[in-house]
This record gives sequence, C-alpha cells and structure tokens, in this order.
Amino acid sequence: MAGDIEARLQELGLELPAAPVPVANYVPALQAGNLLFISGQIAKAADGSLMTGSVGTDLTVEDGQKAARLCALNILAQAKAALGSLDRIQQVVRLTGFVNAGAGFADHPKVINGASDLMVEVLGDKGRHTRAAVGASGLPANTAVEVDAILMVG
Amino acid sequence: MAGDIEARLQELGLELPAAPVPVANYVPALQAGNLLFISGQIAKAADGSLMTGSVGTDLTVEDGQKAARLCALNILAQAKAALGSLDRIQQVVRLTGFVNAGAGFADHPKVINGASDLMVEVLGDKGRHTRAAVGASGLPANTAVEVDAILMVG
Amino acid sequence: MAGDIEARLQELGLELPAAPVPVANYVPALQAGNLLFISGQIAKAADGSLMTGSVGTDLTVEDGQKAARLCALNILAQAKAALGSLDRIQQVVRLTGFVNAGAGFADHPKVINGASDLMVEVLGDKGRHTRAAVGASGLPANTAVEVDAILMVG
Repeated sequence: MAGDIEARLQELGLELPAAPVPVANYVPALQAGNLLFISGQIAKAADGSLMTGSVGTDLTVEDGQKAARLCALNILAQAKAALGSLDRIQQVVRLTGFVNAGAGFADHPKVINGASDLMVEVLGDKGRHTRAAVGASGLPANTAVEVDAILMVG
Repeated sequence: MAGDIEARLQELGLELPAAPVPVANYVPALQAGNLLFISGQIAKAADGSLMTGSVGTDLTVEDGQKAARLCALNILAQAKAALGSLDRIQQVVRLTGFVNAGAGFADHPKVINGASDLMVEVLGDKGRHTRAAVGASGLPANTAVEVDAILMVG
Repeated sequence: MAGDIEARLQELGLELPAAPVPVANYVPALQAGNLLFISGQIAKAADGSLMTGSVGTDLTVEDGQKAARLCALNILAQAKAALGSLDRIQQVVRLTGFVNAGAGFADHPKVINGASDLMVEVLGDKGRHTRAAVGASGLPANTAVEVDAILMVG
C-alpha cells in the first residue's frame, strides 16, 4: 500500500526517479539515531538525463530551479529506498544546496528554492527545513545543482 | 529578564541584529533532538546593510573577518529567536564557513576566525566548535561570507 | 594496547599523521550525543608537507585522490585523539569533500573516492558513509582537498 506522501506525489503528478546507487565506497543514505543522512544528490531526471552547466551562464535561474527540484526528488527517492515509506519522514531538518555558478552570480537562494518548494509541496510543514545555499566552482558530472540532506525520521 | 549570555553581549557592546526571516519555504532554525540547526547566515549588520564582495579582491582579509563576525551575530540572533534565551546554548558544535573568494585565495581560516572568535568571546568554552572553512565561487546577494551552524541546546 | 582498527592500519602499512591542533578558537573534534563532529581536515601528510593546488590544473585526478586520502587519514587521527581508540567508531556517517578546482572540472567524485576508499579499507562496513563531493573556488593554505566528517561513536 502506498502511503499518504506517495499519494500526495501522485496527486502532484510527480514521479520519483529510481534512487541512484553509488558506484563507489559510499552509500546513498544512512541513519544515525533518528537522523537520516542523505548523500549529495545531483539533477538527474527520471529518464536518466542530467541537467548540466553553470547557472547564470549556460543556464537561467529558472533552469537552475528545475535542477534543484530534481535534486529534491532524488533526495525523496533515496529516503523512500532507505525507509520503505516516505510517511516515516517527520521533518526535513537541513538541506545544503550547492549551485554550479561562477563569480558574480548572486541568486543562489532563488535556485535552491526549487528544492525547498518541492519539499513543502510534497511534505507540507514537515518539509520546512533549515538550509544553506552557496556557489560551487564546479560539481560532479557538471550537474547544475547538488543538494544533500538530513531528515528526522520515525 | 535578560540571561547571562545577553548580559555578556551588552558587556561586549554587541548588539544582535533582528533575526532575518526567510522569505521562502525554509526556516531560520529547527531543533532535532538536542541539536539546533541554523540556516546559513549572511553578513548583514544590525542596520540592515550587507557586506558584499569577493575577499582578496574587493575586500581585505580584515573586512572578511568583520563579515564573518556579522554572520556569527546573526547565528546568535537566530538562536535567541528559536530558543528564547541564549543561556540554553550548551555548545556550538559545528560552523561551516563559506568565503566568497576566487582561485588563489588561501586565507579562508583567517576570515572565518571572525566568526569563531565572536562565538568564544560571547559564549566562552561553550563557543568552541568544530568547523570547516572553504571558498565559494559566489554567495547569496554577493555576501562576503556565509556561515551555517549546529548547536547543542538544553 | 593498540585496538583492532589500529592493527588494521599497521597491516595496511598506514601511519596516522599527528592530529593537527587548530591555532584558533575552534577545536578539531567535538562530541554531541553519540555523534563526533570533526573539523575540516586538509591534505597534510605525516611528514608535515601539504598537497596544494587546483585539481585538473596543477594536479591530476590521481594526485587529488592522494590528497583526499590524506584528509581521511587526518580525520582518523583526530578521531583517535578525541576517542582514545578508533575501535569506538561505530559508523562513519557523513563526509563532505571539497575539491580545490576551477570551472569545468567535473571529476569531484573520483577525487573524493580517495577519502571514501581509505575509510572502507581501514574500517570495513563501518567506513561506508554518506557524502557530498563539490568544487571549492579555493581552500585553506591552497590545500588540494578538504574533508570534514560526522562519525557515530560508542
């Protein structure tokens, strides 16, 4: 039986990508006490394509928001894989959003809103988190955005 | 009644800025167990002005330290807003300091000392934290420094 | 008596560097509940030399991996100094790996594998962690890599 949050995802017409499996000596998610740590997720869509490039140069802020939204969907996909059900998420505690962007770019918060908004759309108040949004000189596979997370889970 | 730490702030002649309220789907502070997570704070002064620019180019290291100090004051302002009293801080556990700086700049630790020193001035040994200090290719609104935090609270 | 993990280090022919002591108002490691937070460690070798430069420009990816491995050894050195014995590590929960690299560099995961692989070589499954790997526009003292950590300890 799909849970309430999965029902909400369907209602929103959102599809969780397959949770990407790391090909190295790390894991996508790990629980310590009631905190679930989730590895940095990149802007990979459900069809496997990756949004790449530097925001503000190769990509617009709106593109960057879409990329951040994909990162958030991948965080939820990893949480579901780790927890069995998204209903076990009690609170999204922290998101750290890294925006692939050069000197002079200053709209990192707008970009990371793409991830923040998705969390609140799907999880309601449980999706309201603390966050940092910063510029990265480059990111893995040239992803436009990378977001990692800490969730409180029951 | 103001607590001991607020008395200490007054003694030091320090004024906490108004705790900035995020205008998006995230929150400035959130407690999980006895850890208080605080969103990345920028170098906004009590008068609302923001220290902007790239450290090492637009700004000196000393300017950067002042910016980091402002970030730390904003962290304390957020902690006070979340906890009611700064006396509930048991330990500053982690600061992550992002310095707006280009390639070749190498004095990130000196810059972030502005935040670390403020924490110890105000909180004594409870202000001694672990930290990371790194360069960011750019930061929100072109702030010179951004610092996020995890505090242990009682 | 050296513990099991120290025996494993010897078996691998690995020497822990002396745990670097911060010269400022922060600490190398700090425990909150059963989480041990470790400050960002740079690529300093046991002989005191530091691997510096931008990966992809001054240094190859292989050099970057060696630098990341040194960061991981320093994390273990700090953990030993804080805990007395590495056998108290129950799980490496999170590594955040910052690679000193410019725009266009995209192999941050390969670089940070140098740290991830070392953790699993030394600690086995307890070394499997969540992580983020990102590009930094510059790092302290021009270190090639900086890695911070959160460990679960008993």
